Formats: sequence, structure tokens, C-alpha cells
Amino acid sequence: MKSYWMWYPGDYEIYHTMLIHMRRDEREQTVPAFWKMSSPEVNVTFSTVAGGGKMTAYSNGEGYVQIDNKRLPLNKELTIPEGEHKISVSAAKPGGLPAVYVESDVCPSGDLWKCNAHNGDALKVGFSKHHDSLDKTPEIFPFEYKTLTPVSKEEVNGGYLYDYGCETFCRINVKGICENTLICYGESREEALDGDNCIIFEYVKGDKTLKARAFRYIYVNRDIELEAEFEYLPLVQRGDFKCNNPLINQIYNTSVYTFYLNCRECFLDGIKRDRWVWSGDAYQSGKINAYLYADRDIVKRTALGLFGKSPVVQHINTIIDYSFFWIIGLFEYYITYGDIEFLKDIFPRAVELISFCESRKNSDGFIEGIKNDWTFIDWSDFDMTGAMSAEQILFVAAYRAMANIAEAIGENGDEYLEKAKALNEKIDEFYWNEELGGYIDSYSSGKNHITRHANIFAILYGIASPERTRIITEKVLKNDNITKITTPYFKGYELDVLAMLGEFDAVEKEIVSYWGEMIKLGATSIWEEFDPEKRGVEHYGMYSDKFGKSLCHAWGAGSVYIFGKYYMGVSPTAPGYETFKVEPIIRLGGFEGRVPVRDGEVKIRVTDEYISVTSTASGGIFVYKGQEYPLNINEEIRRKL
Amino acid sequence: MKSYWMWYPGDYEIYHTMLIHMRRDEREQTVPAFWKMSSPEVNVTFSTVAGGGKMTAYSNGEGYVQIDNKRLPLNKELTIPEGEHKISVSAAKPGGLPAVYVESDVCPSGDLWKCNAHNGDALKVGFSKHHDSLDKTPEIFPFEYKTLTPVSKEEVNGGYLYDYGCETFCRINVKGICENTLICYGESREEALDGDNCIIFEYVKGDKTLKARAFRYIYVNRDIELEAEFEYLPLVQRGDFKCNNPLINQIYNTSVYTFYLNCRECFLDGIKRDRWVWSGDAYQSGKINAYLYADRDIVKRTALGLFGKSPVVQHINTIIDYSFFWIIGLFEYYITYGDIEFLKDIFPRAVELISFCESRKNSDGFIEGIKNDWTFIDWSDFDMTGAMSAEQILFVAAYRAMANIAEAIGENGDEYLEKAKALNEKIDEFYWNEELGGYIDSYSSGKNHITRHANIFAILYGIASPERTRIITEKVLKNDNITKITTPYFKGYELDVLAMLGEFDAVEKEIVSYWGEMIKLGATSIWEEFDPEKRGVEHYGMYSDKFGKSLCHAWGAGSVYIFGKYYMGVSPTAPGYETFKVEPIIRLGGFEGRVPVRDGEVKIRVTDEYISVTSTASGGIFVYKGQEYPLNINEEIRRKL
Repeated sequence: MKSYWMWYPGDYEIYHTMLIHMRRDEREQTVPAFWKMSSPEVNVTFSTVAGGGKMTAYSNGEGYVQIDNKRLPLNKELTIPEGEHKISVSAAKPGGLPAVYVESDVCPSGDLWKCNAHNGDALKVGFSKHHDSLDKTPEIFPFEYKTLTPVSKEEVNGGYLYDYGCETFCRINVKGICENTLICYGESREEALDGDNCIIFEYVKGDKTLKARAFRYIYVNRDIELEAEFEYLPLVQRGDFKCNNPLINQIYNTSVYTFYLNCRECFLDGIKRDRWVWSGDAYQSGKINAYLYADRDIVKRTALGLFGKSPVVQHINTIIDYSFFWIIGLFEYYITYGDIEFLKDIFPRAVELISFCESRKNSDGFIEGIKNDWTFIDWSDFDMTGAMSAEQILFVAAYRAMANIAEAIGENGDEYLEKAKALNEKIDEFYWNEELGGYIDSYSSGKNHITRHANIFAILYGIASPERTRIITEKVLKNDNITKITTPYFKGYELDVLAMLGEFDAVEKEIVSYWGEMIKLGATSIWEEFDPEKRGVEHYGMYSDKFGKSLCHAWGAGSVYIFGKYYMGVSPTAPGYETFKVEPIIRLGGFEGRVPVRDGEVKIRVTDEYISVTSTASGGIFVYKGQEYPLNINEEIRRKL
Repeated sequence: MKSYWMWYPGDYEIYHTMLIHMRRDEREQTVPAFWKMSSPEVNVTFSTVAGGGKMTAYSNGEGYVQIDNKRLPLNKELTIPEGEHKISVSAAKPGGLPAVYVESDVCPSGDLWKCNAHNGDALKVGFSKHHDSLDKTPEIFPFEYKTLTPVSKEEVNGGYLYDYGCETFCRINVKGICENTLICYGESREEALDGDNCIIFEYVKGDKTLKARAFRYIYVNRDIELEAEFEYLPLVQRGDFKCNNPLINQIYNTSVYTFYLNCRECFLDGIKRDRWVWSGDAYQSGKINAYLYADRDIVKRTALGLFGKSPVVQHINTIIDYSFFWIIGLFEYYITYGDIEFLKDIFPRAVELISFCESRKNSDGFIEGIKNDWTFIDWSDFDMTGAMSAEQILFVAAYRAMANIAEAIGENGDEYLEKAKALNEKIDEFYWNEELGGYIDSYSSGKNHITRHANIFAILYGIASPERTRIITEKVLKNDNITKITTPYFKGYELDVLAMLGEFDAVEKEIVSYWGEMIKLGATSIWEEFDPEKRGVEHYGMYSDKFGKSLCHAWGAGSVYIFGKYYMGVSPTAPGYETFKVEPIIRLGGFEGRVPVRDGEVKIRVTDEYISVTSTASGGIFVYKGQEYPLNINEEIRRKL
């Protein structure tokens, strides 16, 4: 019978997230994340009931087997007498992920077992198909590797510069180096050649496999034997998009590649720096993933890793908005994948987090950052005085998500709906400014300052009425006097809203001018931030560091979602795409592509003559010119324009 | 300036307690404790403010220094500009104790620093005089070592049996062993020679330093080079007692030695097995320690290690009574040492624990074990149905301790006093049996079963009125039909009560017959349990294991406390022995001894002609025949009998 490594549920995710958050390095120094790091339970007992067979238990930690009341050793074949016997394996491993693997004809490790960390009732164990043999320890994340060949090796300043042709993420193997040798990693050529300012460098000697790192270029100060192995998650691309505009195709493909590099143990923000898991970034990654890999495992790993262990002692990543995105994202996960089991498991954590947010309300009933809380939203010129409207709007959206989740798992969510309603009314009262035609950032300063951000959220999460949505669109979104958004992160929300409002001219203008400009500058992956005013190496600076900017940032991949959801027009109409609609728009002179739907996919093709839709999954409706056409499995529907 | 390693407060104790709870081994198998193990914070930031100097920061984990907003490396001398600058050092170390050491002329690590594990406000750092140089890492507990010489080496069955003359705790160094060699540890000769049944054995080869272990005898199956190094805590014995009865002196000294071996990172239960920290055992150890070492550090380490990290998810050691002893012991610690600072730090934990206990009340308002809770009290023939009186009595005592602690630190403890009063009344109503003259074990079975235990607690903690105390004394304590107590653990409480009631004939009879018998059987340390009916090797068995019994168990050392408190009659009359009384009794044909008082000591000498008392500490009163004599420092007071 098949055996799997098993562990305390959620601890695999917490363990690997902890390692991620300790892996950032900068100039030979480790920079651990500046938030609370959770670690797995130290001491876990796994248990089952079986009889009349054999078992051999293994652990990566220390422990013992117990059959009924008798303590027995690990690593040894044991006989379980006939009948029903209580079997347990205890394992402890500080700093690691205590895990157990049992070979047996009657009780192989896996879903027959429960576990307890001596903190309550026994729970279903955690296990994964990736750790299904004794040698596949769950403490090593199952990445795959392939050797890359550089496109060029060039002698510079007595050393050698390798160019791998595009952004990548590799571990470097070096062999037989006699003298201490400097290796500089560069996402840009300039960074690799600038030993004084490059963010990641190291000195090596002997035979070594180095930590996997992000780069396009490597500079080595002498000629050595060197091999780069690409480290990746073998995700299957299930969505794509292609049109007649090569620049847009390049933007789409570069976005896909950027996202691919950032999908690892969890959704990362960027692969060079800080390579951490950030809830807001991950929230957008969840949307992109739904239209590209539809890989639910990475979403779950990210949610569990970000939450860590109860109790909640600070906002997720210390950021108020990021706590809300964690909750909102849970419901979006459910809508995409229909995974009610996960929702049930994680619901108590969501309750804990929203209660924590409630504990941060000020005397007006609005959430406000206290000491050590970070009100992020975006980098912009906000009026940051007191409680911010953007946070309240997300709070309403999070309450609604809680109500929906509660309802989905058969609990009563009315309390959350009432709280959402009350807070929404208060927002209108305190933040809506009729004259300016939008929600102001903050009421306590009296400055009546408006930015795009809260207004985008208000439309995106249905907080603004249709009438106000119209007003905001004119007076804020299309108003060039309101500060422009500069990060691809918030551009993602902006594009979402523009597409939602049918403002596709604006969407395309934005994509071509912002993303297109990066591509024209030679970007092989999307950058953390882009300012068209900058020149040359200036583009690589950020955080007062010459090469501080990440040149491969997941939040830049939003167009994948925009083309999937709004152009190809595929979205679920019931949780888990049980039913869904396909309502493509006719733009860009036609396009074709695919969107993953449950285990299947929908193919869309728009030419200058017709629209064609084929689905390999049931439950779909093709919508065109107000008409609805049921999609039968594998049956193409084609309509003339 | 002097530097100390620093860590997140409480984590040093949690770390070393975690290691203890993973260190039990049995027949080459590790047996981790069966309760939740807490581990230190993974990620800690230490901070201070300084200027105009140099600093070099070191960590046992990974991290970086930050001066104002600039990230800088560890292990490198850095210059802090003139003025006030924010300085921080971040360190992360999963599975370890993240710690930082800073050499500096302006901000050496230690009490100038605060720290934060990203879970709230910054706290005072933890540090210790034992870890005051870079090489003295706090992950290695500062034990001392000395080489022991065996009293004999004897050839037996082709191997060699070493006898070290008495119980000891050593690490064995072996050198140049070519073949796999068996080493068996025995607290008894029989155990060391019984390879099939001895609890701890191992096979060794090469050069090795083995784990420190308890034994008197070692058997090795071939002639090898072997050295035993005694591992110990260099505690200073500040109390002693000597009378004209050699057996009583031997009991006292064996108790002292037993206790000495068990005082380590924390108070251990026994040094062979399980070598864990148990709150009930530790509570008694606290009383003994007060009359022997008066070492407050070990009490604090034990309290912090036992509590672990918030939130409380189970009883301390899973045992209901042990949660109460943790709380009661805190107040006794305060009474002994007057350490208000520690009380303030730990009070929130006590509040959490008593709230947890309250969450376990049944519909009658009594605490009762639910699934996974262990109602221990002692090994005896209790009526274990439903809520036990012994637990309720301890609950009252814990409430009173909470009220006293609250008052001591300037909080209002009335709520706890009221709860104590209400519960006390309920106990009288449900458990007092006038006819039987005692508190019954349990009311729900209707069996009206009486044991000594609850009745001893009722007197000890002042739950029984003076009248009922008299009744219990006659009808329970002096009633031979009530099952006898068999563990030195509960004998400790029994002696305490008997001495409290002035029943010294009974006290001495008990000590001589119970402890004395063990000594006569050759015990060099006090055993976990003793049954005079057993013969020979039978004495070493327990838990259905031929050598399962611990032959060096701390809870056997209670006589140290009895002689100190009741014979020499020294006890505090204000917290921390600010004032104290010395009221010796005249028994045993005289005796002499010392009791530690604050930083000094009281010397007592009773001969057949006079009593003499000398104190090196102020605040004492000598009480004799109803007269009170103030004790001046170093001034002997002598009174004729």
C-alpha cells in the first residue's frame, strides 16, 4: 500500500514559508523578514487503529512507536497483532518539520492517520503526493532542476560576464576553485559588473552548490568551472492568449514568465529581493493564477504560510490592507475552485483575523493603524492622517467575504453582513465628497485629498453605487490632475476596474504605454515599478539603492488576468466553475487563447469574421450580443460577428 | 563595558526545557514528552539608542545590524555617529535560541537593550551572568564537570562492571574503541548487568563523548578506555541539619544529595527517567530549595519553562493539579524571595492559566478532567468519578494565591478572593462528610470514599476549619484503615501537615520507617517510590518494567524542608524574609543546622541544655516559650531549656 510522509496539518506550509522568510540575502548578510515568523509544532503524535499486519515507522526527528501501551522503536519492522490496536508514532524535531513515514500492509502513513500536537483534538494529518517515498523528505521542497547554457561569456575587467539571455532563477555549481572567487549576480548587466553596488554577491572556494538566486547576468572575477541549474516548480500552463499585436503578445508572455518565476513554495513578490510572501501581492497572484495554472495548491500553501500559527498578534506582513486581502482572497479561492473542505479548515483562522482587525477600530468605528501596524495601500501621495478610506472599503469587502464564506460552509454569516452594511454607511458619511466626486483619503485632517486608490477599491468591491461609480469614473479615474498610479501592483487594480467598466481603450493604452515601455527597454520580466521619466541605470534603483529594484515582480503580471477575464471573458457563475460564462469582447483585431475551467479548458478564438468557443468542461454558457448559448463538452460554437 | 548574550525574555528557559523534554531515552529510542512543547521565537529584533562609539554585533543565528535606516553586517566593527541613533540587531534561528552579543563602548548587549519578536511592544531582553562572553553561547547550559574515579572495576561475564560508589550523573568519554561496544547504565548493580532489561544502554565505537546519564554502575562488554565526568550545577549549599541520630542524618544527607542531582536547568523529577520537568514535583522542589540553596534562578527557570508560550492549550504537564501547583508555587516563590519584578512579568501568564482552569468547570462549578486532561493527585485507590475534591481544594488555594499575587503587584485581587470563598463553600457542601470525618474523593458516584490526599490538602491550604482539622486528624490522618500513602511525593505533603499539626512523633516514625528503610537497603539517593513489602530486585521495578523505577527522585527529599521549616523553625513573616521568625522545637535530643535567609543565614543549635540562634541577616525574631527576642545581626541569642 502507498505511504506518504505525514505532518501536523498546516505545518508544511508554515515550515517552508519560514524558510523563505529567512532566505533573503543582501551583500552577504541575511535579512530575515520583519514580522513574526511562525514555526511548526515541535512535538507531534500520529495515531491510527489497525491490526493483523506489519509496520515500519520512520521519522526525520526523534521519537518512538507505541502499539497499545508498549513503546517500540522506529526504523524496525514491528508486528501488529490481529484485532484492533491503538497505534501511534511520536516525533519531535525543533526547528524542522516533524514528520513520519510508515510502511505497512495495514496502516501506511497518509489519510488513515490523525495527529495531535498535544493542543486539542486529533486532526487529519497533512500529506502530499510530492512526498510519497522515504527519500522524499517534506523538509525539501520538491523543486525540479535543469541546466541552463549562457547565451554569452565575455571577458570584462579580467573576469567573466555570463549572460543567460533572460531573467532566471538558478543555483550555481562551482568546482575545484583554489582561490577565493567573487561571484556577482545581476538582474541587469550593470548590476553584475558593479561589485560595489550589486545586491547579491559572494566569495566561493572549493566545490560548492550555491543558494539558488535570481539573475540574468553573472560576473566572476576569474575563469572557473561554473554551471547554472534552473530551479523551478513544474506548473502546467493551462491558459494563454495571443493577438495580432506583437507588443501585446510580448507583454502577455513576459508577464506569464514573470509570474512563472515567482510561483514557488508560495506566491513570491519578486525573485531577487525580498523574495518574501506578501499577502497583497499574493492576492493578485491568486487572480492571475486562476487564468494561467489554476493551481490550487499554491494558493493554499500561501494562505496557510501567511497566516502562520494562532493567535494573530499582528496584521499579515504587519500591513492592515494585507489582512483584508487574505480574507477576501479566501472567498475568491472558493469561487474559483469550489474547495469547501479547505474553507472549513481555514474558517476559524479567518474569524480570528477579522476579530483582530475589529480590535483595531478607533472611536469612530474605523480601523486605524496603531504602533507597529503598517498602512500600505500603495506608494503614492496619500493624506495619511488617521483612518484611511481605502482600509475601510477593504474592511467592508472582507466582512462580505466572511459572510459568504460562512454561508458556503453552512454557518450563519448575517452578523458580518450587518457589520458590512453599517461600515459602508459610515464610509459614505465620512469619506464621500460630492463636490470632488470621490472618496477622500482621510477625514481627520480636513484636507479632502483624493487619490485613485480608495475610489478604485470602491468600484471593484461594489461599495460605490452605480451613480457614484459613474461620477468617480469621470472625476477621478479619467482626471489627469489626480496623481497617476506608478506601481504595476496598483495598476493591476486600476486595469481591473477599467475593464470592469468597459473602458478598454484606456486599458490598452495603459498596457501598451506602461508595460510596453518596459519591454522596449529590454525587460525580460516585469519590474517592481516603472517610471518612464527615468533614464538608463536609473531604472534599476529603488529604496535608495542603485540596484534596489526587483526586475521580476509578480504583481506586474496582471495582464494575464485582464485578458483571461475580460477579453476572453471567462468567469465562474457558481463556486468552483460549476457553471460559468464565456463572454468575449471583440477588440485588438481578434485574438485566441485558453482559460482553465475545473479540470478542462475553454478555447476562444475571435477573428474579424467570427467568435468561436469550445469547452472541454460542462456547465458553460457562451454569451454573445445578449444571447446565451449552452456549451456542450468539446462542441465548438461559432457565431459570425 | 561588559556584554552579555541577550535573547527574547523567557526563551532561554523555554529552549532548555524543550531540550530536556526531548532528552529522555530508553533502549536507544528517544521518548519525547507527551505534552505540547513550546519553542523560542524564531525571529527577534534587539534595539537600543546610542551614539558616538563603536559596536560589533554577533549572533548564533542569521541576521543583520541596522543603524538608523541603514542595514549593516554582523561580525564587523561599525561606527555609530555622534548623537542619538536607533540601533537594532535582527537575528533568526529556527530550532535554536536566537541570541545576540554586542561588543561596544556605548551600547554593549545587556540591560540597555530591548527586544521584540514582532508580536507586540518591545520588552526587556533576557540575559544571564552565565553567558557573559562571546564563547559562552546561551544554547549550551553552563554546567560544570569533574572527573570521577570508580570505587571498583570488576570482571563479570567477560566484560567489566564499574561501581562509582553512589548514584551519579555523568557523561562518559570513550577512546579508540575499534569494535562496537555495549555500555549498560544501572542505578543498581542488577540493572547494569541485565542487558535485556536495563533501561539505558548504547553501542559505541571510536572516540566519543556520550550523553550525560544517571547511574551508579556501568557495565561494558569489553575492556576499553573510559572516563566518567560528573555534570553538575555548582549550587552553594546554604542549609544543613545534623542531630544525634545517625540514621536521620543519613536520611537528611541522602535527601540533600538526591535533590542536588535533580537541580539542573530546571527542577527535574528524577535523573534517570523520565528526567522531565513536572510542575507538582517542582512545587515540592521549590519548598526544599528554600531551605537548602535558596537559589531563585532555578525556580524562575522552572516556572517559565513549564508554562512555555501562550496561549495555554492544556494543563501544565496535562495534569489538572499541576496547573494549580504552578500558580500556588508562584506565590510561595514571592514569599520566599520577595521578587516583585518576576511576579509582575509572570502575572499575565498566571491569569491565563487560571482562566484556562475556569474553562474546564462542569455544570456544578467544579473543575473536572475532560479528554486529554490527567487527574493525577497521586497513585492511590481514589474514587475517580467526576470532579475530585482534591482538585477543588487546590483550585481554592490557587485562587487565593492569585489574589495574593495581584495584591502584591498592586492589582485588585478581590475577584479571586470571592471565587475562592464561593468554591470553598461549595466544597463543604458537596464533599464534607461529617460521619466519616473528612472530605470524600468524589460526590458523583455516591460511594463516599475517603483517602488521605484531599484531607491533607484541606489542612495544608487552610480550607478546613480548625474544628474540622481536628476531626480529620483523628478520623483520617491517624486512622490506619485509610489507605496509606506510598509515594515520597505525597509523603512530603503528609509530613508537612503532620509537622504543621505538631505531630512530631508521627513525623519521625514516618521518616525513620519509610526513608530509613530505603537507606538500610543501601539507597545512595531517595527512590521514586518505596514499598517495604517488596524484596531484592523487586524494589527496582515500576510501570511493568523490571528496572522502571527511578532510584533518584527529587520528591523524596522532603525531609530537608521539614527539618528546616519545622525543626529549626525558620519561616518568613513578610515577603522575601524581610522579617522572619525562628522558632525551633526541642526534639531528637538536640540538633544543629543552618537555614538561608536572604543573602545571609540563621544558625540554630539545640543541645540538652540550651537553644542558640544566630542570624547574619536582619529582621528576625527568635521565639521561645511564647517570648519573642529580636535577632541582631551576628549576635547569638542563647536560652536555657
